Amino acid sequence: MASSRRTPTSYEQFKNFRTTFPAPFVAHVEINRPEKINAFDNAMFREITALFDLISHDPNVRVVMLSGAGTRGFSAGLDVMAESTSGPVGTPVETRDFARKAWAVRRHALLYQESVNALERCEKPIVCLLHVVTFGAAVDFATAADVRYCTRDVKLCVREIDAGLAPDVGTLSRLPKIGVPYSWAKEIIYSAEVVGGEEAARIGLASKVFNTKEEMVSSALAWATNVASKSPVAVQSSKALWDFSRDRPVADGLLYTAAWNSAMVLSDDVRKAMTSGLKRTQPTFEKL
Amino acid sequence: MASSRRTPTSYEQFKNFRTTFPAPFVAHVEINRPEKINAFDNAMFREITALFDLISHDPNVRVVMLSGAGTRGFSAGLDVMAESTSGPVGTPVETRDFARKAWAVRRHALLYQESVNALERCEKPIVCLLHVVTFGAAVDFATAADVRYCTRDVKLCVREIDAGLAPDVGTLSRLPKIGVPYSWAKEIIYSAEVVGGEEAARIGLASKVFNTKEEMVSSALAWATNVASKSPVAVQSSKALWDFSRDRPVADGLLYTAAWNSAMVLSDDVRKAMTSGLKRTQPTFEKL
Amino acid sequence: MASSRRTPTSYEQFKNFRTTFPAPFVAHVEINRPEKINAFDNAMFREITALFDLISHDPNVRVVMLSGAGTRGFSAGLDVMAESTSGPVGTPVETRDFARKAWAVRRHALLYQESVNALERCEKPIVCLLHVVTFGAAVDFATAADVRYCTRDVKLCVREIDAGLAPDVGTLSRLPKIGVPYSWAKEIIYSAEVVGGEEAARIGLASKVFNTKEEMVSSALAWATNVASKSPVAVQSSKALWDFSRDRPVADGLLYTAAWNSAMVLSDDVRKAMTSGLKRTQPTFEKL
Amino acid sequence: MASSRRTPTSYEQFKNFRTTFPAPFVAHVEINRPEKINAFDNAMFREITALFDLISHDPNVRVVMLSGAGTRGFSAGLDVMAESTSGPVGTPVETRDFARKAWAVRRHALLYQESVNALERCEKPIVCLLHVVTFGAAVDFATAADVRYCTRDVKLCVREIDAGLAPDVGTLSRLPKIGVPYSWAKEIIYSAEVVGGEEAARIGLASKVFNTKEEMVSSALAWATNVASKSPVAVQSSKALWDFSRDRPVADGLLYTAAWNSAMVLSDDVRKAMTSGLKRTQPTFEKL
Amino acid sequence: MASSRRTPTSYEQFKNFRTTFPAPFVAHVEINRPEKINAFDNAMFREITALFDLISHDPNVRVVMLSGAGTRGFSAGLDVMAESTSGPVGTPVETRDFARKAWAVRRHALLYQESVNALERCEKPIVCLLHVVTFGAAVDFATAADVRYCTRDVKLCVREIDAGLAPDVGTLSRLPKIGVPYSWAKEIIYSAEVVGGEEAARIGLASKVFNTKEEMVSSALAWATNVASKSPVAVQSSKALWDFSRDRPVADGLLYTAAWNSAMVLSDDVRKAMTSGLKRTQPTFEKL
Amino acid sequence: MASSRRTPTSYEQFKNFRTTFPAPFVAHVEINRPEKINAFDNAMFREITALFDLISHDPNVRVVMLSGAGTRGFSAGLDVMAESTSGPVGTPVETRDFARKAWAVRRHALLYQESVNALERCEKPIVCLLHVVTFGAAVDFATAADVRYCTRDVKLCVREIDAGLAPDVGTLSRLPKIGVPYSWAKEIIYSAEVVGGEEAARIGLASKVFNTKEEMVSSALAWATNVASKSPVAVQSSKALWDFSRDRPVADGLLYTAAWNSAMVLSDDVRKAMTSGLKRTQPTFEKL
Repeated sequence: MASSRRTPTSYEQFKNFRTTFPAPFVAHVEINRPEKINAFDNAMFREITALFDLISHDPNVRVVMLSGAGTRGFSAGLDVMAESTSGPVGTPVETRDFARKAWAVRRHALLYQESVNALERCEKPIVCLLHVVTFGAAVDFATAADVRYCTRDVKLCVREIDAGLAPDVGTLSRLPKIGVPYSWAKEIIYSAEVVGGEEAARIGLASKVFNTKEEMVSSALAWATNVASKSPVAVQSSKALWDFSRDRPVADGLLYTAAWNSAMVLSDDVRKAMTSGLKRTQPTFEKL
Repeated sequence: MASSRRTPTSYEQFKNFRTTFPAPFVAHVEINRPEKINAFDNAMFREITALFDLISHDPNVRVVMLSGAGTRGFSAGLDVMAESTSGPVGTPVETRDFARKAWAVRRHALLYQESVNALERCEKPIVCLLHVVTFGAAVDFATAADVRYCTRDVKLCVREIDAGLAPDVGTLSRLPKIGVPYSWAKEIIYSAEVVGGEEAARIGLASKVFNTKEEMVSSALAWATNVASKSPVAVQSSKALWDFSRDRPVADGLLYTAAWNSAMVLSDDVRKAMTSGLKRTQPTFEKL
Repeated sequence: MASSRRTPTSYEQFKNFRTTFPAPFVAHVEINRPEKINAFDNAMFREITALFDLISHDPNVRVVMLSGAGTRGFSAGLDVMAESTSGPVGTPVETRDFARKAWAVRRHALLYQESVNALERCEKPIVCLLHVVTFGAAVDFATAADVRYCTRDVKLCVREIDAGLAPDVGTLSRLPKIGVPYSWAKEIIYSAEVVGGEEAARIGLASKVFNTKEEMVSSALAWATNVASKSPVAVQSSKALWDFSRDRPVADGLLYTAAWNSAMVLSDDVRKAMTSGLKRTQPTFEKL
Repeated sequence: MASSRRTPTSYEQFKNFRTTFPAPFVAHVEINRPEKINAFDNAMFREITALFDLISHDPNVRVVMLSGAGTRGFSAGLDVMAESTSGPVGTPVETRDFARKAWAVRRHALLYQESVNALERCEKPIVCLLHVVTFGAAVDFATAADVRYCTRDVKLCVREIDAGLAPDVGTLSRLPKIGVPYSWAKEIIYSAEVVGGEEAARIGLASKVFNTKEEMVSSALAWATNVASKSPVAVQSSKALWDFSRDRPVADGLLYTAAWNSAMVLSDDVRKAMTSGLKRTQPTFEKL
Repeated sequence: MASSRRTPTSYEQFKNFRTTFPAPFVAHVEINRPEKINAFDNAMFREITALFDLISHDPNVRVVMLSGAGTRGFSAGLDVMAESTSGPVGTPVETRDFARKAWAVRRHALLYQESVNALERCEKPIVCLLHVVTFGAAVDFATAADVRYCTRDVKLCVREIDAGLAPDVGTLSRLPKIGVPYSWAKEIIYSAEVVGGEEAARIGLASKVFNTKEEMVSSALAWATNVASKSPVAVQSSKALWDFSRDRPVADGLLYTAAWNSAMVLSDDVRKAMTSGLKRTQPTFEKL
Repeated sequence: MASSRRTPTSYEQFKNFRTTFPAPFVAHVEINRPEKINAFDNAMFREITALFDLISHDPNVRVVMLSGAGTRGFSAGLDVMAESTSGPVGTPVETRDFARKAWAVRRHALLYQESVNALERCEKPIVCLLHVVTFGAAVDFATAADVRYCTRDVKLCVREIDAGLAPDVGTLSRLPKIGVPYSWAKEIIYSAEVVGGEEAARIGLASKVFNTKEEMVSSALAWATNVASKSPVAVQSSKALWDFSRDRPVADGLLYTAAWNSAMVLSDDVRKAMTSGLKRTQPTFEKL
């Protein structure tokens, strides 16, 4: 089942991310820099933004799996070495003025945040597959995905405190919103404590925990294949509406949902889905 | 214990809902269309709005139990057959213009949303009792209740994706707000997966799980009877203040609470409750 | 390790709170009125505000442990007896006008709320240590802390309903926000049910549960000592950014974080932390 | 000026409001209790809610003019005499408990607020025509309309302060939002000062001022007739989108607008309007 | 004009502010450092906070007039000379770490903001009387008042840009909210342009403009005396409800208003005011 | 008037926009398609986004003037002809499914909104110079600028209603926020009425009105040159902080401002500006 059946040229432009299509309408993105445990350098932040913006409008993709290549981990987060020569901390800033240095830092942080936002902004659901090393920025990306699976041997760590700074590209803004207990979250963030897979699942950060990466990928593919068989109008609308509602009062979520669905409910997908439901056949939905 | 001790005429106007009063100040509302597994047709959406608006101001009610009649389930959700002849999807709309069709759909969705809102707007706490089939709109109603109990054999399903549409009468706006892990929620919503009672309890969607519907109803009645013995000013204020706070910053929740309680703290109930607490007697509170 | 190594005069002004410094940069605040199970009278509400405002800017404190003196409990909450002679309920108000009485009650509630807010407003992380009696206002304070530990024998109770009033100094505004299931929370609030330690941990209200108060304090001290060894810029920024994000859309959390960190990322702490990380030495951070 | 060409039975059920149709798709609602200067009693609050909910979905109405019958004024606001026998202040409340009295007052205020909200909730634009006496609740209604015209001799007064209470059915929530200077607004509210037509226009509260009521009605009819000739999809969408945006960040207004218009832009009205624009003919739009 | 009839000792503690009572229930606060054109040093920021917090709960005050002593101006804003030796810019900060300097600046800004907030937080309405020099921080205070009057010769200037910084104690947060055109406001802020009295009135920043300071004070006293004769419950509630509504959706403003007024409408003031209205007598309201 | 002294290659890539530099740090952007009255086709929406994103970070620009080339007008808005062949309305969409068409429309609207947002997102202040034809999308851009000047002969028109649709790329979300009276705004929007320069100025939409385009450009250049001589840290911070505050409660604006300025107040610009102020010399600020 899992062989790549279509690899459009455009996906090949990304040096550090390998995208395959293990099932119809399912894209599998691998962070592909295993020799650095998939740590992110400056270029990768830009690449992942472009990649997920591409996926977002690609009618051939309905669900995305995001994992880290290799056995050592999902991602070691920010590549501190690379960053120390090119990032906001290490760059030989051309100014001695504090305000201008700070201004440059802020512009840089906003760019990195946009890379993480690209996962949330992507119209298609993303399941993030976490194994072994999952540090720092890796958690920022994971919290911006829709669904999280992990292996028993995952080593989740909001590690920024140990680098002398507060996480600033997503974790501190999203973790309070995705249904994990605050007492637990603050405990591990302030101490930069490493969290294992059982605990991640118990606490609700991940919805499933697996013995091996292979089992995890396989289970994710089964889920993704299932979701990819549903109406993309229905699935993608659900992602958009959930994420809007998360940040707003229930009354606003309802208004937005009613406006959104005023068009979507008129889709042929509804008729097809209902007919298939009655006939117990598999509907075929137009691309989106 | 459970016989109806007072059935005001007004509650008898509702064809598809049976309301009994198994204990003082406790109303038990049953969705009463077991032959269709309590599926909601158009008229029932209107009825439930009127019913809960009636309960909201009924001084003889302090707590509400909401369950589904029969053994087959709490509710199968929207009655698709009925809807296909009279609802926004099936109605022979008198226009060929897309915008006007969409406008009609939106008006319809807002009406259905109001039915679900009626549970949240109801001044009295509601415990929702879920058994076996609990599909689609049934989940919208359940998430709008205050407390959820379920049986081990419950089959909870946010089923709309399988009908080719995103849920639009409440679930997508309330589920992100009631303290369940997002990873789990999005996983089951996108896949229209069926959730059992153990899982619902583990995840926090329900606070108690029971072996049988009878045990569930009996336990709910004990809880309801207890709550009904408390000051209704205190209980109903708590519902109002919690729901306001859910959607707003902590600072706003505090301001609203202080304004609200400026009157309520002066209630005789406070004096009565404190006196009874000291004397270990059961206070009698005036109706509200 | 645990003996008090520095007790500045200013901390001695607080009659009902004992502050010790069991480890460098760790303050341990004990509610110190064990003969009343640490119940809060009017003066104590004022004292705790001043105490945490002092701690907030004390460069010698980086983490705070908050516990109740004695074996009977963390705190019995509002001292109803004291309140009935001096509080908003009991005070012989000099007016017979309802509106003016209500106005006085509101002013009073805002003052009490400020005492609870002082914990959230305190720049330093607070771990709250709950044992046995933890009633009413005690829960308001606990939910305003960052981390909660409890003993197996804790008796948590949002008890206000039994006093004839809705909780109004914090619980109803903060409990909906800290990642506990709503069904569970509303169930226990309306019924004023007592919750044990296992349940508090299972539900996520507390992140750890202990067999004895001593174990709890000891474990908390180990955690606090660890956190106190980290960059205070990083730790305190994380508290500020998390709390801001909790109440606002993700996009606003991100903007605020970027603005905040534009200065903080330029801290020497980042360089020190990174260097120490590489050299595996323990960095020494300047006070804050 | 066109006389009333259609008076559906349903509009005749309203005793205190006269609805005529002076031009195609234009409804003219008159508050019709001139002997009391159109003061609102309890029944009228209920009537106006039902009336505007009816208009909201009436496909034969596209714009609404709201004025007061007779020469003495638009409306004297709340009929204090009537209220003193049946309203929240005057009703012989069946309780001596302050909290329960307050509860009744709040329920009552919410009902009155709903009457005012009915104007904002009405899908069709409303121009409110103010002459001479425009006191108290009259201002609440006026601020909930879309457009305000007034005569030179109007006597606008937020009069509640002189009745010993803060306005509570809309003015204090809407006046801060409709583009009038705060310094001016607070000055006249605290002093219950009467404002004339020139001042109302200068300050932006009204967009036009007229010498006589007749001129005002005539000018309003010309404007309404013009608006009624436009696409109702476009006009009603604009009202909905403006009102949503008023209360939310620009970014949310944009998102909602994009979702809303995703259906509406596909309307035949766009094609018709564009074709007519090129051919300089008058398009005919389907009802909505 | 009425001379000061009561000067409680407590008001005499403030060195730089002179408080007199020119009419019953009217306090007149003068910034009293004319030799420095009433510029604010560090101590004055603390004093004005304490002063307005005192006024806020003083039952003998119902309205406040705020003006600057002397002929040279309302206030020159921040005393840059004083600040350069003791403020966040000039203070010899004991650290060389940029993050810690920034942290100190932020704490300082929050303190200054609190001084400005004290005017908004003050329960009593404040009319701010601006003449000649009204620079920088003076505008922050003015925008936090309820009503603004000015003289023709006022020289209003948001001057911070010319000091190399963005205004950060209130103007940038409040000016967008008080009903002035944005195009005008941004034009003068970016250019640090001086605005005269006619323009301030035309644009709505001030609601009245006067030829002389004496006329302005006299007119303000007449207004204040009038407002002071009204029900303080009604007036102070109006301030609280307006300010809450300003920052929130209309629906939230309405909810808060209904909760607030549930107590206040039951005031004796309502009965007294209505009776007096009928009898055309002057009611006497209890203190608040 | 200063001729263009520097035209970086990068600005020459934009076919339809001419950027000159009439004074140090002042960029003048002209919409340069006068033969179509500067109407926007699809490509121009993309160009203007890229152009303002370039300006936003260009250290050689501190203020931007935006005008329309030629004598016929600022811009005729959307080029309906071009749009009818390539835009969301005219494109031969490859689907017959209503939901998918609507989805495409929404994606398109979001793209156009982003073009308008680019003006607001641009770090530098923008003064928008409106003459003669200023229709539809032209108003969307104008309301997203900081300052608006216009000529007496401007013909402002929110024209979308006459095209059968509600404005959806900015006007309906921003016009309610920039300090114009709602009654006036809704009156002209629903009727697609043309507004002249005197009226635009009276109502506050523009802050200055001129007899000729030349006078307007000349006056704008004087203002821009003045602003460009100020600290760019101060000016750009003010834009950022005002825009953040517009959409949020005052309290949030204050918090954000304090965090932002914690770095910015430490700028050398403050020292330079203060020194220059005392010495009455012209400071030179580092680029930003």
